Order: sequence, then C-alpha cells, then structure tokens
Amino acid sequence: MDEESSNNIPLQVQPDPTKRGTVCVFGTGDFGRSLGYKLVQCGYAVIFGSRNPKSSDLVPKGAEVLSHAEAAKKSSIIIIAIQREHYDFLVPFSDVLKGKVLVDVSNNLKIDQYPISNAEHLADLLPGTKVVKAFNTVSAWALQSGTLDASRQVYLCGDDTKAKESVMEIVRSLGLTPLDQGSLLAAKEIENYPLQLFPMWRLPCYICAGFTILVFLYCLIFEVFQPLATRQEDTSYVIMITIANRVFPIVSLILLALVYLPGILAAIIQLYRGTKYSRFPDWLDKWMLCRKQLGLVALAYAFLHAIYTLVMPIRYYVRWWVEFYLKAQIKSNGTNPFLNYYAWLSDSYVALGILGFFFYVVLGITSLPSVSNAVNWREFRFVQSKLGYLTLVLCTAHTLVYGGDRFIYGPFYRWYLPPAFVISLIIPCAVLVMKFILMLPCIDQRITRIRQGWERKTKS
Amino acid sequence: MDEESSNNIPLQVQPDPTKRGTVCVFGTGDFGRSLGYKLVQCGYAVIFGSRNPKSSDLVPKGAEVLSHAEAAKKSSIIIIAIQREHYDFLVPFSDVLKGKVLVDVSNNLKIDQYPISNAEHLADLLPGTKVVKAFNTVSAWALQSGTLDASRQVYLCGDDTKAKESVMEIVRSLGLTPLDQGSLLAAKEIENYPLQLFPMWRLPCYICAGFTILVFLYCLIFEVFQPLATRQEDTSYVIMITIANRVFPIVSLILLALVYLPGILAAIIQLYRGTKYSRFPDWLDKWMLCRKQLGLVALAYAFLHAIYTLVMPIRYYVRWWVEFYLKAQIKSNGTNPFLNYYAWLSDSYVALGILGFFFYVVLGITSLPSVSNAVNWREFRFVQSKLGYLTLVLCTAHTLVYGGDRFIYGPFYRWYLPPAFVISLIIPCAVLVMKFILMLPCIDQRITRIRQGWERKTKS
Amino acid sequence: MDEESSNNIPLQVQPDPTKRGTVCVFGTGDFGRSLGYKLVQCGYAVIFGSRNPKSSDLVPKGAEVLSHAEAAKKSSIIIIAIQREHYDFLVPFSDVLKGKVLVDVSNNLKIDQYPISNAEHLADLLPGTKVVKAFNTVSAWALQSGTLDASRQVYLCGDDTKAKESVMEIVRSLGLTPLDQGSLLAAKEIENYPLQLFPMWRLPCYICAGFTILVFLYCLIFEVFQPLATRQEDTSYVIMITIANRVFPIVSLILLALVYLPGILAAIIQLYRGTKYSRFPDWLDKWMLCRKQLGLVALAYAFLHAIYTLVMPIRYYVRWWVEFYLKAQIKSNGTNPFLNYYAWLSDSYVALGILGFFFYVVLGITSLPSVSNAVNWREFRFVQSKLGYLTLVLCTAHTLVYGGDRFIYGPFYRWYLPPAFVISLIIPCAVLVMKFILMLPCIDQRITRIRQGWERKTKS
Repeated sequence: MDEESSNNIPLQVQPDPTKRGTVCVFGTGDFGRSLGYKLVQCGYAVIFGSRNPKSSDLVPKGAEVLSHAEAAKKSSIIIIAIQREHYDFLVPFSDVLKGKVLVDVSNNLKIDQYPISNAEHLADLLPGTKVVKAFNTVSAWALQSGTLDASRQVYLCGDDTKAKESVMEIVRSLGLTPLDQGSLLAAKEIENYPLQLFPMWRLPCYICAGFTILVFLYCLIFEVFQPLATRQEDTSYVIMITIANRVFPIVSLILLALVYLPGILAAIIQLYRGTKYSRFPDWLDKWMLCRKQLGLVALAYAFLHAIYTLVMPIRYYVRWWVEFYLKAQIKSNGTNPFLNYYAWLSDSYVALGILGFFFYVVLGITSLPSVSNAVNWREFRFVQSKLGYLTLVLCTAHTLVYGGDRFIYGPFYRWYLPPAFVISLIIPCAVLVMKFILMLPCIDQRITRIRQGWERKTKS
Repeated sequence: MDEESSNNIPLQVQPDPTKRGTVCVFGTGDFGRSLGYKLVQCGYAVIFGSRNPKSSDLVPKGAEVLSHAEAAKKSSIIIIAIQREHYDFLVPFSDVLKGKVLVDVSNNLKIDQYPISNAEHLADLLPGTKVVKAFNTVSAWALQSGTLDASRQVYLCGDDTKAKESVMEIVRSLGLTPLDQGSLLAAKEIENYPLQLFPMWRLPCYICAGFTILVFLYCLIFEVFQPLATRQEDTSYVIMITIANRVFPIVSLILLALVYLPGILAAIIQLYRGTKYSRFPDWLDKWMLCRKQLGLVALAYAFLHAIYTLVMPIRYYVRWWVEFYLKAQIKSNGTNPFLNYYAWLSDSYVALGILGFFFYVVLGITSLPSVSNAVNWREFRFVQSKLGYLTLVLCTAHTLVYGGDRFIYGPFYRWYLPPAFVISLIIPCAVLVMKFILMLPCIDQRITRIRQGWERKTKS
Repeated sequence: MDEESSNNIPLQVQPDPTKRGTVCVFGTGDFGRSLGYKLVQCGYAVIFGSRNPKSSDLVPKGAEVLSHAEAAKKSSIIIIAIQREHYDFLVPFSDVLKGKVLVDVSNNLKIDQYPISNAEHLADLLPGTKVVKAFNTVSAWALQSGTLDASRQVYLCGDDTKAKESVMEIVRSLGLTPLDQGSLLAAKEIENYPLQLFPMWRLPCYICAGFTILVFLYCLIFEVFQPLATRQEDTSYVIMITIANRVFPIVSLILLALVYLPGILAAIIQLYRGTKYSRFPDWLDKWMLCRKQLGLVALAYAFLHAIYTLVMPIRYYVRWWVEFYLKAQIKSNGTNPFLNYYAWLSDSYVALGILGFFFYVVLGITSLPSVSNAVNWREFRFVQSKLGYLTLVLCTAHTLVYGGDRFIYGPFYRWYLPPAFVISLIIPCAVLVMKFILMLPCIDQRITRIRQGWERKTKS
C-alpha cells in the first residue's frame, strides 16, 4: 500500500487461495523456497516443479510438488528459480512452456559476467515463451523473514506487456512495489544492479581518505613532532580533537573546491576546442559524475568540524588553559583592553563559518533524491551552481579571516612549514579566481554560445 | 506536474468543459460535493445524481442535478460517493449501470470493519460494472480548499485496466498522482490505509516512554532525593537540563542496543532449530518489524543529548560553578598541574561521542524513504549492519570512557545505587558480546549455511 | 535502473544498433543534435531530417542525414526538435507523417505564452499523427555531457497509449525515468514546468526578507545607535553575531506564527459565512498554499539561531567580558550567592528552546517529499497540526521565559522602545489565543460540522 515506507508488510492479509491464482515455481533452492513460502502466505496456490517430486520435505507447507511438466501445465506463470548454468535442462519442456510467462529471478556472481543477460538467454533458449525479469533485486532471506527493511522496489522488464502486468500483480500482492524498466534489453542492467556496492562513492572516498591522511600527518608533524623535537614537550593529547578539528575543515574545503573544479576545466576545454560536441577526457567524465558524492563527503566533514568546534569549551584542555591564563592575569594584575577591531574580526570569522555551514546543509538537503526530483532543471542549476559558489566563497572567506587572526597571534612558521590552513586555501582560491575569469562578459558570452551549439569552424 | 512537492495545484488551469469529459457523481454528501466542486474547477462537466433533483441548492455552481438514472446515462464514469450501508439502493439501477466505470470512494470507520472491502462488495452487487477503488485516501476538506499539503498520491485499484486508466486520467487532471495498486483485491488494504495512525511507531514509542520514565525516576532519586534526604540540599534545579541530559543518552543507548538485539536472537533461534524455514515467535517478528522506528527514536534522543551537552557552558548553573571554583582556587593560591593522561581521557570521550553521533545521523539519513529506495539490498545491509554496529561500538565506548572519568572524580555510590549510566551499559555490552560470539568463524559459518537454505536433518 | 539517484548513467552500455530501433530527428539545432548524440551512444540508429542533407557536418558521428521526407519514411518515431514558429513547414509532409509517433520536445520562453500548448498545436496541424510531449524538461547540455545530476524524470503525455509506451521505452534506454502525465491536455503544464523558478518560495522569501530588514534596523537602533548617541560608545562589533542572533529567533517565531494564522482566519471566515462551500479571498488562498515554505524558512532561521547561540562561549567578546567580570569580582572580593530560582529560570528557558527546536526539526523532516508521501492524511494532519502547535507553544514559552530573565537584569527601555523580542511575541500570542478560543467545545463543534458539509441556511 504505502509505497515508500517499510512499514506495511501485509501480515494481516487473510489468504484466500481461491481468489489469487496458481503460481508454479521451478527449483527448490533457497530463493525458490523463500519465494514460494511468501506466495503461500499471501494466498497463492503454489506448485513446485521438481525432478524428484517425492522428496518434498523441503518445500513450504501448503505448497504442492509435482514433476516439472505436470507443474508447468497447472499455471500460466512459472518462476524459474534455477541457476543460468542449468537453463539448458528446460529445453525439453519447451512445448509445455510455450505461451507461458517465465519469470527469471536469477542473479550472477560478477557484474557483466556473461555477454548477454540471463533473461535474454532464457528467452533465446525457449522461443514462444514470455520471459519477464523480476525479483532478482530482492533478498531471499528478507522475503522469507518478512523483514524487508530495505527497498521494497522490484525492478521488472519484459517484452510482453500482458505478461509484465501479471507479474506486477504478484509483486504488488506480496507487499512490494513493481517498477517497470521497459523491454527485456534492460535485463542486463537489472542483473548488475544488486551486485553494486556504492560504485559512485568509491572515488570520492579514496580522494577523501588520501587528503585526510596527508593533512593528518602534516598536522602531526606541526603540532606534535615539532614541539617534541625542539622543546621536549609532549603534546600528543591534541590528536583526538585539536588535530581532528584541523583535518576536517581543511579536507572539507579542498573537497568542496574539487566539486567545482571539473566544471571550470570543462569550460576551459570547450573554449579551447571551440565546440561542445566532443567528448571530455575520461578522467574528467568520471570526476564530473561523482561531484555530488564529493560534495556530500565534504558536508560530512564540515558537520564534524562544526561539532568539534562547538565542543571546545567543554574540553578539559581548554578549561585548564582558561583557568591557568586567568590565574596568571590576576597575579600579574594586568589589564586587557577590549579591542574593537579584534571583536569584529573574531565575530566575522565565526559568522562566515556558520553561514557557510548553513548553505552547505541546504545544498545537502537539495541533493536528497526526493527533493532533487521535485525541482526542475532550472531550479536545480540555481541551487547547485549559485548557492554552491556562495558556499565556497563563504567557506574560503572563513578560512582567510581565520588566517588573519593567526597572522597576528601565535608563532606562524615551525620548521619553515606554513600552517596547514594556508595550504588548504590554494585550490579553493584557484577555483574562485578561474571562475571569476570565466564570468568576465567576453568569455562568458563565448561559453554560452558554445553551450547553445555554436561551433568554431576550423577547416585545417 | 511536479509529482512530489505540494506546490503545484493547477489553479491557473482555464477550464474548458468541451475538452474534459462528463463525470457523474452519485451522492450529495460532503465528499461528493467537494469532489464535484474540484472537478468543475478543473474543467469537467459534472452531473449529480440525486433522489430529489429539484433541491439542488447544495451542489457546486456549474454542476447539473438529475435523477440517478438520467445522470448515469450521461456519463461513462460514475463516482459513488455514498456510504456502504446504502449500496443496496443501487441495485435497481443495475441495467443503466452495466458497462459503466463505478468509482468507489468510500471509507470505513474501523480497520477491517467488514470481511470484504466496500469496493468488492459493490462489484458483487452490480455484476457487469467496472469498479475502481480510488480517492478514499484524499481528504474532502483538502480537496475542496485546494490546500492539499499532505500526500497528493491517490491509490487506485480495479480489475479492468481501461477503467483504471480513465480514472487515473481524472486523478491526474485534478493535480494528484495516481498510484496503481493492482486488482480489486487490493481494495481492502487501500480502505484500511487512511485509518492508520502510525501503526509501526506505537510499540517503539511505548518502549521509549517506559525507559524514559524509569531512568528519569532513578536519576531523580540519585540526584535530587538523596542530597535532599542526606544533606538537606535543594538540587531540584537539575531536573530541567542535568537530569534530562542523563535520561536522553541512557535511553538512546539502550534503544540502539534493542535495535540489534532481535537480529541476534533470531540467529540464536535459527542455530538452535537448525533451519530458517520456521516462523519466529510473534513477539520477535513484531520487534524486528519496528527496528527502524526504534532506531529513529534513539537518534532523536541522541540529537537532544548532543544539544543539551553543547548548551552546557551557557547555563547559569555552570557559569556560577566555574566562577565559584576559580575564586576558591585563587584564594587558596593552589596550582593545578596539567594532567596529560586526563586530557587524553576527556578528549577521547568527547571524540567518541561525536563520531558515534555522526554515524547515528548517517544511519538516520539512509533510512529516509527516498534514500533507502535508491540503494540496493547489498548496500542497505552494508550501511545498516556494518555502520550500525560501528555506531553501537562507538556509543558504548563513549559511555565506558565517560565512566572511567567518573570512577576517578566524584562520589560513586549513593544509597548503594550505581550511577544510571552503569545500568545503561548492560544491554549494549551484552549485545556486543553476543555479536562477537556469533561472529566467531565456526558459528558464523553455520549461520551463513542456514540462511542459505541448509537444514539440519532431525528425524526424531 | 536506479530510479532516484543520479548515479546510474549507463555509460557501460555497449550499443548494438540491431536491437534498438531507428529514430528520426527533425531539426539539427542544439537540442536535436544533443538528443541524437545521446541516442547514438545508447545504441539507436539515428536519422536526421534536414533541408540540406549534404551539409551534414553538424550531426553527431554515426547518424545519417536525409531529406525530411526520406528520413520520416525510415522510422515510426520522429522527434520534432524545431521551434513552434516553424511547425507550419511540416504540413506538406502530412502524408508521410500519417500514423507516425511525433515527439514534441519544444519549450517556450514564457509561462502560458500561447493559448494552446505546442504539442496540441502540432496535433491540430497534423491530424492522423500520434503526438507525444516529452523531453522538454531535460537540459540539452546535460543530455549531451552525460552529467544529469538533477532530476532524471522525463514527463510525458499523449493521447495514444501505444505511442506513449514506445517513447517511454526510449526514455528508459537513455537512463532516464519516464513519468506518464496522461492525455495531451497535460502538455501545457509540462511546457510551463521547466520555466518555473521556485514559484512557491517567492512570497515566503519576500515576507522573510521584509521582516529580517525591519527587525535588523530596529535592533541596530537599539544596540548600536542608542549607545553611540547617548554614551558615545562604539558597539558596532555586535552586528555580526549579537544582532544576527536577535534577528533570527524573532523572525523565525513570527514566521512560525504566520504558518498557523491563515488556518485560524479560514476557520473564522467559515464560522462567519456559515458554510465551507465558498471560496476564500485570494490572498488567503495564496497564503495557505505557501505555509510549508514559510515553515521551512522559519526552520532555517531557527537552525541559524541555534548555532549562533551555541557559538557564544567561543566569541572573543564573550571571553573578554567573562575575564573582565571575574577580575572585577575578585578585586572587590564579592560573593555571589547561588540563586536556586534563577537556575530554574535559566535552565527552563534553555530547555524550552531546545525542545522547540527539536520539534521544529521533526516538522521539517516530515515535510520532505518522500516522508510526507509515506504518511496518510490522518498522520500528516497529526504531525503538522498537533506537533506544529506544540512547537509554536514551546517557542513562544521560550521567548516569554527569556523575557522574564531580561525583566530582572539589564536596562529595559531605551529611547522608550521595548526590546525587539517583546514585539516578536505579539503575533504568536495572538495566534495561540485565537486557537484556544476556536478550541472551546461550542465553537469547535460548529467548525467541525461546517467542515463536514453542514451549511447555515440564510434565505435573505
């Protein structure tokens, strides 16, 4: 009923096998039995086709077991729950199967394991049948235990509309949501789908891990090794929070800049080539496709930076230092004039950071699938491009003002190394400068014309 | 147009009754009139069927009123906006209604009020008609006022595809999204749907409320009654924040552990029974089905814990105490050496908490319907199982390290009672220990085999 | 495959032009070429129809160019990628086009530019063809570069089901999700869709900007100009955080109250008119339709208020003041007794704020499209009405208790102006009082009866 939540497993349905039809299942393996079990539960008459109809102790209670040929005769829908390697054994039954709806539920072990999909292979083997690919994206264990917390969507495809309709009816009556994916050509993609493990997240995660390790080591040298080597001071306690809270904002800012860099490179390539009708280099394509994921990783780090910062006054280290400082101040009877300019600087830096984080979060929310589906192309571009650059500007300014602060207080260079935040500014500033150049009217006009289809004629 | 947002009521549509067809509505009750009103607005010619066609002052402007028989003749689609109890009165018109599409919009007062659904009852009464269930999930008041902020989804079902298509066309032209739910057998579920009020949230909320009250009372004894009884000290001001911030993390941790406990119990039952093909006890089934909701309640409490903690330095109580402590320190001229080991401990405890909260939030985001629909089964299991246990480990470690802290400072036992956080550790630690045992290769192998369909033969 | 994420562009599809059919594209403009390019990539045989088949250097590699008539003969599906103004030129080919599926992809420059939609105009010009509106919501640039980060949904409509099916198949094979919008009458709305830029957000944003500026100026007078004029004190450094953190909560509370005010006004109007079957004034209609957006803007401001508050102890201004105060205290050797009552007040105020913010966030989450689609009308009303009023009560109480605090400490009136938060309480308190009156049994009963369709007869 409720298409999107995982709350509505129709446990309360009172099965009435006279109303739902009969479904035949070939194969008494795990998936076949689980599906059969669920079908019986939902009021279908289920008949298993088996080589050995007498050893029927494996099939769910309430299901019948017959030989393959007999079973096939009793139902117009046959679920083929056997592995691709054994499809050949169905060929002798091709007469009985003619005109029937065959539901291919098989999965492979590797992506693109075979040149043609299992479902198309089945259709080739048994001409005259109506093959529908379905159920392969559902877990047997979840089907059987009724705890389908994950997606309840069942991807379907097939060349025969009527056959697809009848399978969709079964899918719906199991409490799942059918999603028609078109003709049987889509079977390959449907078979690859359950084998994927966050394919688009891999590159962003590697990039993020790389930067995290680099920045962490840099900060470790700066904050722990240098004091240890020069002053024999053990400051290793800064690792858990102080260094972490240096790594998160730096990597976050770099990743945010990397989200906008490929767009700029693409514009430069198009300007140089004078056309948009030529493919980008492969690495740029891949980079552009994972921008959303890069941005979300950057947001995660920004979130951690925000909490690590807010937690500061609670830390023992900070409380101890405040106490120590106050005691020293009182002892020396010193007065500390209120610096108007410094109040401005400190507040600006904090406010810029908060606003940057706020727009970061807004960008994150609009990249939720249901939100980005609800906006049109123009609105999406407005949010992701205008708000995105605003976020980058705010975060870069936050770091610059923070830097201004640091220039005044504290020792700047240790072992001739600049503090890590200085390095973190390189890519964002470069991106902003290039973007600014590309926005100059003369260049912007040219890019717009190229993107509208104009081509520079070079007959050389 | 925009399927998912609530922004696009086609107010601007200029009705042109020659293009949209004619729709007949039986019944001039609230829902019938509201629907008629909306249909007229959207450009349909609407004819009401009434016993008393002359007293037509109730129907919306622009609609016609005729006798039932005459009205039925003018349209191929008839919306039956009368209550189930009066369906019998339609029987005399069965000749006129033959071949027509009847749209059943009725709702019941209770879940599963009748053995068969209203729509099926209607179809039984009037053979030869094409009954489509629709519109019952939409509010009359919202339809009429145009303020459909909630779901614009209209669930439909029916046995005749063409009839369904024509009703879906009407649904779309009212600015709503039709969702085909299959054959008329789905009508019962569609009729139950609008009567539900968060059925899956009830158990988790009761569990949460129970734990909250228990822990609150325990803390009240510990923090307010004991000081009052033994030292005549009024510390009741701790209720609003200090005690709340003790209740939230404790209940959150317990609930998080309760999310993972049923999975472990299920594994133990399967190991014991030697098969997965047997139903779990009912209580376990129910528990497993509400794990997502339990987890979200736990996340809500973790969120409150985070803010209550961050707000600490702003509290008057804390500020006063800091001031008092500093004054005392300065008076006594004491020095407080910086404890390297304590800085490590305090920072670790905070960092573990932040990371635990971070993964908590990630889990929460992936349980949003649109996000969990966008991942496949393998990815969902990875997030919910791997990341979920990581969160549990981090949060338990956070509490343990916090405990370490408390062991050193502060009075530990009052009235021989352990502090509340010690009690809160029982379930999470038990879950983690059991999970660790189940992950031992010899046991894990066996569970994997059972879940792949293997059964221990016990012929006794 | 994966309907909702933007991750699954089928780059890996190995085109096999023998399987996918032939598609004809009329028009070698930007959109035609981009679509053709993508179709070739996805394995279609593409034939462009051109006036000048020899100057074919513009079309994508792998596509053929023929004259319009020849091209049309080779395919049953013809994509009309030319502007509406040039549709007339198709009339001479009406014989060749008879029975073909024409896909209208055109867009206009303004909303409601023409009285009838482009697709209907095309269908009128060429009777005997099957016109399907599609692809107009997709960006040419995105199609061509493969970086469809935004919505992959393609809205379709058309009067011929078979024709629509075949276009949907093409849409799916390009890695996009077709969304059937019904008959060709929906074309107007589909053509308007890509031209919108957050139409429902405009009014709330203007309202919010207006209040923000007003409250900001008021606070500026109060906090900066008054001290400057009367005491020659430069307190301009409060602008970045102190004043911002006064503007955000005040505007947020007012906007939250404005979310619930129209519902109350509607009830009053209905009570006065004695019927619900009459249209509300236009301004009230518009106001009611943008309540969700108003609430989300209010949530954004509440979020900013929360972070601006939590950041307080980190600010230089606050740290300096704490230090100054402590030094003064120690010098004067004053003692500061712990005020039990003030600890209660301060903690209550903070706790009310946190709980208010928490329910605010819950409301925000339930208004995400995927979440609000997953709840029924009854559940949605429960959340938005019950929880919404709870939030309003909590936030108003938060402000009132904060006020209590201020009454005691600090100078209250400057230049005879009340502090800004006093003004911010007017609308919320008025809304709560009116709601309370409407909830009185006698009045509530009457409203309920009116909303169930009862009408007061006034024959005057």
